[in-house]
Amino acid sequence: MPDGPESNADHPTLALDELIHQRTRLGILTVLAEAGRSDFAYLRDTLRLTDGNLSRHLQTLADAQLLTVDKVFEKRRPRTWVEITETGRAALDTQIEVLRDLLARVERGRDHSKEQQ
Amino acid sequence: MPDGPESNADHPTLALDELIHQRTRLGILTVLAEAGRSDFAYLRDTLRLTDGNLSRHLQTLADAQLLTVDKVFEKRRPRTWVEITETGRAALDTQIEVLRDLLARVERGRDHSKEQQ
Repeated sequence: MPDGPESNADHPTLALDELIHQRTRLGILTVLAEAGRSDFAYLRDTLRLTDGNLSRHLQTLADAQLLTVDKVFEKRRPRTWVEITETGRAALDTQIEVLRDLLARVERGRDHSKEQQ
Repeated sequence: MPDGPESNADHPTLALDELIHQRTRLGILTVLAEAGRSDFAYLRDTLRLTDGNLSRHLQTLADAQLLTVDKVFEKRRPRTWVEITETGRAALDTQIEVLRDLLARVERGRDHSKEQQ
């Protein structure tokens, strides 16, 4: 049986929030964390999504209060702004810490298996 | 519009392999990468899965040739051994590199938005 120093600690993947872990939603939140807010078209193009796909994921994230979606008119043209909330930033920060734990564990695992060879 | 130094580079989440990114499958592969091989019960308990759920994910990963599943008899009792393949290790390594890029980008994004405040 595997028996490293961390056998008794919960595996880091158990702490990953699946709502945020999903690839596209992780992309949306990281773009927004960097930019603060972004318009719909920028998110769609950066993450290479269809309008429908982006809309669906934004709805899921808005339902969880991780971001807000505002449809406005600018110079008589409709524009959709998406902004990360404080809750969204906190959730992403937590997720990033868990991923960092996971990467550190994989690194230590590599060293450990090298020692055993 | 957000306009960092990396605006023209593909967003790291685009390079994430969804097959491996899925939380439970990422857990299975990281446990196996650390241990080399593991039995079914250890994986199930470490990742807090049901037998059915673990079986389903193992099948998905085996279909992609990222691991092998061997059902054997040891001391007349059935035991299922799961082993990561070279393809599996390579795929996990690639994924880990992408996650590392993503974390680095989030970090730089934080510094960038601090500078703008």
